[in-house]
Amino acid sequence: MKISIINGPNLNLLGSREISIYGEKTFESYFEEIKSEFKEIDFDYFQSNIEGELIDEIQLRGKNSNGIILNAAAYTHTSIAIADAVSAIEIPVVEVHISNVFSRESFRHVSLIAPVCKGIISGFGLESYRLAVLSFISKPI
Amino acid sequence: MKISIINGPNLNLLGSREISIYGEKTFESYFEEIKSEFKEIDFDYFQSNIEGELIDEIQLRGKNSNGIILNAAAYTHTSIAIADAVSAIEIPVVEVHISNVFSRESFRHVSLIAPVCKGIISGFGLESYRLAVLSFISKPI
Amino acid sequence: MKISIINGPNLNLLGSREISIYGEKTFESYFEEIKSEFKEIDFDYFQSNIEGELIDEIQLRGKNSNGIILNAAAYTHTSIAIADAVSAIEIPVVEVHISNVFSRESFRHVSLIAPVCKGIISGFGLESYRLAVLSFISKPI
Amino acid sequence: MKISIINGPNLNLLGSREISIYGEKTFESYFEEIKSEFKEIDFDYFQSNIEGELIDEIQLRGKNSNGIILNAAAYTHTSIAIADAVSAIEIPVVEVHISNVFSRESFRHVSLIAPVCKGIISGFGLESYRLAVLSFISKPI
Amino acid sequence: MKISIINGPNLNLLGSREISIYGEKTFESYFEEIKSEFKEIDFDYFQSNIEGELIDEIQLRGKNSNGIILNAAAYTHTSIAIADAVSAIEIPVVEVHISNVFSRESFRHVSLIAPVCKGIISGFGLESYRLAVLSFISKPI
Amino acid sequence: MKISIINGPNLNLLGSREISIYGEKTFESYFEEIKSEFKEIDFDYFQSNIEGELIDEIQLRGKNSNGIILNAAAYTHTSIAIADAVSAIEIPVVEVHISNVFSRESFRHVSLIAPVCKGIISGFGLESYRLAVLSFISKPI
Amino acid sequence: MKISIINGPNLNLLGSREISIYGEKTFESYFEEIKSEFKEIDFDYFQSNIEGELIDEIQLRGKNSNGIILNAAAYTHTSIAIADAVSAIEIPVVEVHISNVFSRESFRHVSLIAPVCKGIISGFGLESYRLAVLSFISKPI
Amino acid sequence: MKISIINGPNLNLLGSREISIYGEKTFESYFEEIKSEFKEIDFDYFQSNIEGELIDEIQLRGKNSNGIILNAAAYTHTSIAIADAVSAIEIPVVEVHISNVFSRESFRHVSLIAPVCKGIISGFGLESYRLAVLSFISKPI
Amino acid sequence: MKISIINGPNLNLLGSREISIYGEKTFESYFEEIKSEFKEIDFDYFQSNIEGELIDEIQLRGKNSNGIILNAAAYTHTSIAIADAVSAIEIPVVEVHISNVFSRESFRHVSLIAPVCKGIISGFGLESYRLAVLSFISKPI
Amino acid sequence: MKISIINGPNLNLLGSREISIYGEKTFESYFEEIKSEFKEIDFDYFQSNIEGELIDEIQLRGKNSNGIILNAAAYTHTSIAIADAVSAIEIPVVEVHISNVFSRESFRHVSLIAPVCKGIISGFGLESYRLAVLSFISKPI
Amino acid sequence: MKISIINGPNLNLLGSREISIYGEKTFESYFEEIKSEFKEIDFDYFQSNIEGELIDEIQLRGKNSNGIILNAAAYTHTSIAIADAVSAIEIPVVEVHISNVFSRESFRHVSLIAPVCKGIISGFGLESYRLAVLSFISKPI
Amino acid sequence: MKISIINGPNLNLLGSREISIYGEKTFESYFEEIKSEFKEIDFDYFQSNIEGELIDEIQLRGKNSNGIILNAAAYTHTSIAIADAVSAIEIPVVEVHISNVFSRESFRHVSLIAPVCKGIISGFGLESYRLAVLSFISKPI
Repeated sequence: MKISIINGPNLNLLGSREISIYGEKTFESYFEEIKSEFKEIDFDYFQSNIEGELIDEIQLRGKNSNGIILNAAAYTHTSIAIADAVSAIEIPVVEVHISNVFSRESFRHVSLIAPVCKGIISGFGLESYRLAVLSFISKPI
Repeated sequence: MKISIINGPNLNLLGSREISIYGEKTFESYFEEIKSEFKEIDFDYFQSNIEGELIDEIQLRGKNSNGIILNAAAYTHTSIAIADAVSAIEIPVVEVHISNVFSRESFRHVSLIAPVCKGIISGFGLESYRLAVLSFISKPI
Repeated sequence: MKISIINGPNLNLLGSREISIYGEKTFESYFEEIKSEFKEIDFDYFQSNIEGELIDEIQLRGKNSNGIILNAAAYTHTSIAIADAVSAIEIPVVEVHISNVFSRESFRHVSLIAPVCKGIISGFGLESYRLAVLSFISKPI
Repeated sequence: MKISIINGPNLNLLGSREISIYGEKTFESYFEEIKSEFKEIDFDYFQSNIEGELIDEIQLRGKNSNGIILNAAAYTHTSIAIADAVSAIEIPVVEVHISNVFSRESFRHVSLIAPVCKGIISGFGLESYRLAVLSFISKPI
Repeated sequence: MKISIINGPNLNLLGSREISIYGEKTFESYFEEIKSEFKEIDFDYFQSNIEGELIDEIQLRGKNSNGIILNAAAYTHTSIAIADAVSAIEIPVVEVHISNVFSRESFRHVSLIAPVCKGIISGFGLESYRLAVLSFISKPI
Repeated sequence: MKISIINGPNLNLLGSREISIYGEKTFESYFEEIKSEFKEIDFDYFQSNIEGELIDEIQLRGKNSNGIILNAAAYTHTSIAIADAVSAIEIPVVEVHISNVFSRESFRHVSLIAPVCKGIISGFGLESYRLAVLSFISKPI
Repeated sequence: MKISIINGPNLNLLGSREISIYGEKTFESYFEEIKSEFKEIDFDYFQSNIEGELIDEIQLRGKNSNGIILNAAAYTHTSIAIADAVSAIEIPVVEVHISNVFSRESFRHVSLIAPVCKGIISGFGLESYRLAVLSFISKPI
Repeated sequence: MKISIINGPNLNLLGSREISIYGEKTFESYFEEIKSEFKEIDFDYFQSNIEGELIDEIQLRGKNSNGIILNAAAYTHTSIAIADAVSAIEIPVVEVHISNVFSRESFRHVSLIAPVCKGIISGFGLESYRLAVLSFISKPI
Repeated sequence: MKISIINGPNLNLLGSREISIYGEKTFESYFEEIKSEFKEIDFDYFQSNIEGELIDEIQLRGKNSNGIILNAAAYTHTSIAIADAVSAIEIPVVEVHISNVFSRESFRHVSLIAPVCKGIISGFGLESYRLAVLSFISKPI
Repeated sequence: MKISIINGPNLNLLGSREISIYGEKTFESYFEEIKSEFKEIDFDYFQSNIEGELIDEIQLRGKNSNGIILNAAAYTHTSIAIADAVSAIEIPVVEVHISNVFSRESFRHVSLIAPVCKGIISGFGLESYRLAVLSFISKPI
Repeated sequence: MKISIINGPNLNLLGSREISIYGEKTFESYFEEIKSEFKEIDFDYFQSNIEGELIDEIQLRGKNSNGIILNAAAYTHTSIAIADAVSAIEIPVVEVHISNVFSRESFRHVSLIAPVCKGIISGFGLESYRLAVLSFISKPI
Repeated sequence: MKISIINGPNLNLLGSREISIYGEKTFESYFEEIKSEFKEIDFDYFQSNIEGELIDEIQLRGKNSNGIILNAAAYTHTSIAIADAVSAIEIPVVEVHISNVFSRESFRHVSLIAPVCKGIISGFGLESYRLAVLSFISKPI
């Protein structure tokens, strides 16, 4: 199984800035932990501040992954183009957010991407990514 | 550890109506599965179609649980009173939805409760509840 | 044939208050007249001021009636939960109002329930209920 | 007793177009059935696609009928002028719609005419007209 | 000097309906008085309930009058087409209203036509027309 | 003289939760003080988290009290049904709030109930109730 | 007969600034012409840039004039207080504007004062004032 | 092949008014040129200022043309009734505008008709009509 | 203890105009009664129709009173500047209204000043002022 | 003559995804056909998912082409920056869309770019591009 | 060179109130410093809480200064009349704010005055005034 | 001291296009002048049309400059992502605009970036940048 994690603008700053909000861990070190825990999954990771590069990556991964975990950050609220890219591919995409976006400024309450995703997980810190991974591999109980 | 699951209006119909959308499983049988999987957790479950009874239950569980998994269903979008109850208690509340509410009618895109919850999980079918349970017991990786 | 009439909040006051608007007849006495006129129909009647009890009744009657005549009164304009209950059942529901709600305050011009009903009849006094009964038994002309 | 039925734009197409929605019956043949059933009533019928001709007819019938059954179709949502004509006459006007306008596009949810009508009946197919006739001749029960 | 008076929908009812608001004088008799008072002016008068006929008349009079006094009544608030006709001609158009439209329903507070008129006179009863005539012939003081 | 105090959702938590905002006094002990101070008045008190039970109580007290002091809490901003109940009774109702609702979230700035009350008192802590009592017994100065 | 003309902010600049729009005549010289033409009327004139002084004047003239011609200029669109003053007096007030306010910026299309005036005259240059005087002395034709 | 061109209000003025915007050519002479260029097509042309007559024509041509080129002019932005007529017929309708409506007043940016048309061509002067004809006869390249 | 009462525009007309609404008592005579009843308090009173003079007074009294009772009348709904003045001083300000502003025109439902006041009392006639005085001197019960 | 075709985000997927909507032809093969048909024109083609690269290309082509055919896809509805680039160049730009954007989601009904383009062609499939080419080379008829 | 500084409501409190926000310096002492630094400029200073007095001053200085530095404070967001005064004079006006108004309440984000000013400087503390002075005397570099 | 100047989309066109608005000077030559005047400051300059590259630069300069002068041009009004980048760094950012954005189209009146900047300077031509530099080095007077 192949899962792609795609992070949007300013998420490269994780771990070095606004530590009181986002914690001291960089996404890279967190990504190592995720890979250790889920050894059976083949992960890849991509981050960019450029909207169009995120679209390129979604199109690329849409052809060779089984699922995408997407944190489009600020572009979540402004990019119809990313939403179009998610619509255009056939694998499921799960939208995640580190903070609870619904507790923040009102312009962050609307997600243009959520309507074309499979689901949304928001507010559990970096744990939101792990829950998203679990959503892909949940064994029927 | 004690976790309370609280379901709002019309969720008592799960498994018997609108099967094409919600599947054939009743919440009661799903609840048994959840209890089997997470034996170390002490669960309780409550469902009501009455807004005020949900408030009563949130207040009650707020005093003797460690966390609440809340699917307020249609009240999610109209009840300031439930949001006030969530605010008034001190334990974390995770909002869940079976369907992806952001893909449905526009009046379901606004949650009055999300801003006062810890996080939101929406769109994974009954699996949304299991992911919420996992969010409470996630071991640091 | 079985038809259920369900009345929402404050309609228990009919006949005793605001007589200049609603007339001097209680709904109970009007209900007797309806039963006398349509002897071939098996009627039942329910009134509650509590939103969730109305949902319980709609769910119940949805299983053993052939149609529901619903006057949700003030909840017409605020209850997504009642609308969800109407959606969840399979028998036709006709929305009725005693007064012409479109001549009153603007917040009464929007019905959350109408989109999921079969039809709406508003403005004919208690006669609105009788027209709704007739809509169920109209013989093809 | 004299009742006038006035139909607005595109209703002349009934029975020949969009049969899956509106059925195969022309309004003319339905009108014959109505006349047969209510022999004691003197009916007249008028249809026009022209807003001002509908106003002319409402003014004319306002002087020599006992009531008007008005389906202003698309003009329902845009014509203050027809609403003014209804206000200017003294006989009661009942607004009818074949389909349930509240289940259709949101710009059809607002009726400029309803506030000045006696009542509204919407969603019962051609039967909506028959219920409107009945509303004029209801015998006290 | 040639002045055209053009009246829109329902103004043919003046003097026979809603007398408490509009008075008992028909526009025709008022028009005779206007002609008597201003003998030096060549008047013509047109009324229609049909939007397009009003446009035809505005186009026609735009070519052979020196000014138009226009009471578009309800079309004032809905007709971009009449506004376009007023824009397309070169003679000045004065918008008049018998009642003070700003004291009435809020949908009457917006005039689509006023922005392309020379001026607006509203609220002086039939006298509004006479003031409009005076605006065309005002001698410099 | 008979005065009824009716409290809405979550107000049963007074004194035990959010003490920094609402203080440490329960409403019950405050109610005792009120009764001691105004011995000449016959008080009764009712609290419920259920919208419909508040309506039941308003209808009941509307028949046998001289006035109602109503703190509908969160329902203040969403319940047309409670407003209808207040309209339907004949005794005066005074709306009170412990906190200044106008300093809080914007969705608390609109009261659906205030337009049908006699007056509103907001922001004086529990003292708001005492001022409301005084409004009923003010001696002309 | 006594008529008061009251001008609002910036109208003291008439004749010296923005001549291309407002012309070269000061209001004072225009006022002399008005007084010469209508010798039988007792005029007084007041101008202020201060909202409260306009209110004082409206209150004062409301007691000893027969009518007020009011050009509240920019306050037309923002002052509920001036509208309250117009409501509080009993003599008729006519709102005038030199330019056609409906052809200007959209924030000038709404008048808070118009709803409580007798009528409005806008767009005829200084002639708007003369037409307003004529509206007070119109002889029945 | 049969193509119908239908023009709405004020388009009869083409060539004689507002020449700087619309040019000096009447639509009639342009229509001759179109017929000369596309000899294999059977054209007919209709213009009216009356909304209902446009609906009549759309219904008529819907039965005996292969396509309609529709410039509804100002009615584009206000007529749900014309949109209903376009929906009711089965042949494709192409919406055209001479000017670029999106560069003009904001109330011209919304087309009620576009959603039910096949396509829209706007801003190419009279050439917009010719491009619409070409859209009907495009040979596969 | 020193309490300042500050009244805004048009309140100088109390007792002489709109008697049916506001009663026949002038504020001056009411003020005498207040002073008689609460002899232990040192009152001062100020009224102005001028927004800036009210600001001056609020600044002045903010330095030498213990509390302000403010009825800003129409400025309540338009003056950010008065709200800024209230924010800038340190003593508590209670907003009062004679009528229930929430039962009047919708533009009176929003108070720009309430968010920075201690509380609001509205709808008790002149008694609103007395309740405000009581709110300052309430003895703990 | 030199014409530049510029395509925005996700249009590189044409022919491989969502074939039921967009058909099986890639834009590259369509582009070959266009070049074959219009041999006298010198075409160039550019596609990017990156907003800023589209701006760079528009600036570049603005200096050495005679016209641009621009399909900004999803950026049509969000990019003021592309609109600024179109404004900054002097050659005409024609906006095209493959589908009828006005029949799709409402957020696609507003084009920020259309107001600064020469014209818009939407809804004719890939044929929209060919019509745009024709608009540049139309011979006067 | 002559520059006028005009300050609006509540700015007379600078230095004595809300010191944590605005600092301890009075505007008067800051004004002395400005005069010392720019000896070649002839300054005058005016402050008022009264909207109309600010208008008077703007009109006066518009005739005998070379530029105005205007901090209209709260009136920035409500006064069309001050904006009209700025429009009516011919010398440049620079709008300044001590705090960054765009970081404060949302009703402070809209300036009615900015559109008619030469420029705006906001957020640099008292330094905003000095930058405005520099904008008037900038030597070409 | 190190100051970074960052320019957004289309600002590379300065000096070659729209000269009547922006003048004939390229930013590069203006930048040389700035460097000459302020020799004690270490400047760097960056321009891009790509939103994400601006974010990259802001993040980079946030780590090694003392302040940023940012003209985000069209992205000012649409980019939540740039605003997030400004929030994430710790050095002060001053927003500048060459033209007065508040005098232009209404969609340019809202800045998403201003709330997280230190201040804003708009409308002084290229001089806006020099004033921003001065704001960083202002000596206390």
